[in-house]
Amino acid sequence: MRDIEYDKPWMHLEELIEASDFDSIRAFLDELPDDQTALALSRLDEDLQAVLFSQIQPDHAAVLLRHLPEVQAYELMEELSTEAAAAIVEALPSDEQADYVGELEPEQAEEILQRLDVQTAQSLRALAEYEDDEAGGLMVREYVAFPDSYTVKDAVSDLQSNVDKYRDYEVQYAYVVTEEGVLAGVLKLRDLLLAKPVHRITKYMVEGPQTVSDHATLYELRDFFDRTAFFGVPVTDHTNVLLGIVRRSSVEEALADQNADDYRKAQGIIQEELRTMPVITRSRRRLAWLSVNILLNVVAASVIAMYQDTLAQVIALTVFLPIISDMSGCSGNQAVAVSMRELALGVVRPSEVARVWFKEIAVGVLNGAALGLMIALVAYGWKGNPYLGLVVGLAMAINTMIAVSLGGTLPLIMRRLNMDPALASGPILTTVTDMFGFFLVLSMAAMMLPVLV
Amino acid sequence: MRDIEYDKPWMHLEELIEASDFDSIRAFLDELPDDQTALALSRLDEDLQAVLFSQIQPDHAAVLLRHLPEVQAYELMEELSTEAAAAIVEALPSDEQADYVGELEPEQAEEILQRLDVQTAQSLRALAEYEDDEAGGLMVREYVAFPDSYTVKDAVSDLQSNVDKYRDYEVQYAYVVTEEGVLAGVLKLRDLLLAKPVHRITKYMVEGPQTVSDHATLYELRDFFDRTAFFGVPVTDHTNVLLGIVRRSSVEEALADQNADDYRKAQGIIQEELRTMPVITRSRRRLAWLSVNILLNVVAASVIAMYQDTLAQVIALTVFLPIISDMSGCSGNQAVAVSMRELALGVVRPSEVARVWFKEIAVGVLNGAALGLMIALVAYGWKGNPYLGLVVGLAMAINTMIAVSLGGTLPLIMRRLNMDPALASGPILTTVTDMFGFFLVLSMAAMMLPVLV
Repeated sequence: MRDIEYDKPWMHLEELIEASDFDSIRAFLDELPDDQTALALSRLDEDLQAVLFSQIQPDHAAVLLRHLPEVQAYELMEELSTEAAAAIVEALPSDEQADYVGELEPEQAEEILQRLDVQTAQSLRALAEYEDDEAGGLMVREYVAFPDSYTVKDAVSDLQSNVDKYRDYEVQYAYVVTEEGVLAGVLKLRDLLLAKPVHRITKYMVEGPQTVSDHATLYELRDFFDRTAFFGVPVTDHTNVLLGIVRRSSVEEALADQNADDYRKAQGIIQEELRTMPVITRSRRRLAWLSVNILLNVVAASVIAMYQDTLAQVIALTVFLPIISDMSGCSGNQAVAVSMRELALGVVRPSEVARVWFKEIAVGVLNGAALGLMIALVAYGWKGNPYLGLVVGLAMAINTMIAVSLGGTLPLIMRRLNMDPALASGPILTTVTDMFGFFLVLSMAAMMLPVLV
Repeated sequence: MRDIEYDKPWMHLEELIEASDFDSIRAFLDELPDDQTALALSRLDEDLQAVLFSQIQPDHAAVLLRHLPEVQAYELMEELSTEAAAAIVEALPSDEQADYVGELEPEQAEEILQRLDVQTAQSLRALAEYEDDEAGGLMVREYVAFPDSYTVKDAVSDLQSNVDKYRDYEVQYAYVVTEEGVLAGVLKLRDLLLAKPVHRITKYMVEGPQTVSDHATLYELRDFFDRTAFFGVPVTDHTNVLLGIVRRSSVEEALADQNADDYRKAQGIIQEELRTMPVITRSRRRLAWLSVNILLNVVAASVIAMYQDTLAQVIALTVFLPIISDMSGCSGNQAVAVSMRELALGVVRPSEVARVWFKEIAVGVLNGAALGLMIALVAYGWKGNPYLGLVVGLAMAINTMIAVSLGGTLPLIMRRLNMDPALASGPILTTVTDMFGFFLVLSMAAMMLPVLV
């Protein structure tokens, strides 16, 4: 299967769609290596994507949808007719149903909900209330539950008559619930193999199983799965009514998304971007962040403007300004990355600003001394003036300490203020360290002007 | 459970360890909220960690180990006696066993292997041959397999007599294998409920199940799980012998780790760092990257040194050098982030350098024009000299195009050279864009000197 390599698989797909040859499309996609499916689908024109997803079986469309990058998949759903979109939503697992419906315009979402069966629509409306990264938003509603009045025989016959329905659930537990829906216990399906048919199922269930609250955070869920070997955990509300199951893999996936998101934010990509998007959209999204950045850069550089006279007399300093600016940004960003990691692992609390600063300044002193010495030697070696070395070395050393102090503590402070700590490494940090860096070099130079000229 | 908040849970833990009160430790840790367990364990002295993990039950130690950040867990294993370490390794799931043993010094690893039972040791040696991020390195070896000669009755009685062993497997499939270990089919355990005891199990199995090769990459595995609803996939070698099972959650976890890793590398943290590590280690690791960076910075700034005379005559230019340097780095890093994302999603191939450049330069022209205009207006507004505006604006525009071209294509080129693309956003990119940026401003200024002064 791996040895087929289409040069441009999307072109072949385009031809098939334009020829309305949907039988061949299925065969072609089935045979296409996995790592080319995303490529082929994502490179199609939006119009052809919409034709493809309306014409193939909804089950197949639901599977293919997962190959598309999220933004593309959401846009595609908006393009589809309500009828086609509703059919695909129906074929999706319940946790993804809510994600897609939640991303649509309210009117389109409402139209789709009205086409779904009452129960699905109702549960989607309930799921829409939850945040994406809490247990309620991550749970699936496909699980096997039996009333606590059931006998083993009732349970087995329910399983047998619902084989098709349960086939895709991939669960090996059944949940035992009271008439009010309260979770009473958990039953291993395998134990039913060994159980006496006439016994009540409550005889075989594990009572008081571990659960999580519907508002449990992503990090609480990760901690839960770190601590246990379970592949899923029941989600209950405050009255212990069973609402759904959160799977280990959903938690890991949400963590992966968050880490990828942090990476992009640190690089200045706030909204997801793909190169298939229109140039103007991509340009505008990137410019939003760059424009803020250039303004802050101008503010920081105005410190240089204030010292024009000093610079004019010691022109050699101009070489060191960008070096100090860049290196302080690097030192600060390293500290940001360590704090982000420690926050994610739960080995530091957002309130421990003093501890982090204390730990960070120790590294700052060492690295500041090392970097300061290096740059001082470069300056001294170049111009033969020890005072020039002293000014740039000292400025580099002090500014490194400022940068790590700020970089280490900023993510904690932002978390406490309920802001996204991944944004800490951006404009705020570099503007402040630039201003301090320029000020340190130039004010010291101004004071020592007689020995520098 | 959530309402207990210990101010410093690790202090209480320290006291209990020093008093050798291991019964109370278990009770204390069981009662401690999840989000404080990592905190409490990671803040303990290495010596006390070692005492704790040697004295408690190996099962419990194996669970607690997962709460520690990986680097700390690996260091702790090195501190433990071979006996204690072997007991903990034995209690770990098989995919994690190999990870821990693989991180130890070869001699210590060998000593531990010799204490394990022959079969476990043998399978760990085999697993050690695989990379961490291929199917062989991610698979678990805990699965239920039956010979194809079994009847349903044989299978059920095997399940019944191994209830304890299978309890933790969390699988709902049994694999049917030939005498040579070749995978013949997959059996839903639930289907055994409905099967006739005297029938051969081969009658109920699904033949020719989907499998992955032991050398399947992380991205191939992700594609597989994107395409299917399975929670695990059997791993086979080239002769179709069943080797293990890769779970969906293991793949998601490996992806999460890789994304977090990319984030840290982009910020200049190449090796994992925690603030509980010795200051000297942390300083040295960060300096390794900073030292390379400062050298490259000096190289880039040497362009400025070459134009000292020009700068001395148009001192206003000094204000704009750090701005152009910083903004080009930002524009380049945005392009890096988009390429990293597209590579991870599989919507771009490493060979498509020309396509990416073409898409990127379109954004570069727009954003270069916008940023160039902004900075030109600032320069003109400040000094009233339109030629100053022209020089810095044009330099900014051209350098933005260079930065996005390089930022967009560098990750693809590095991937083709089998280098880590996440490192692209670092020193190489900024050094090149700095050099071009400085050169553009200063060479244009030198040419237009008469109208600038």
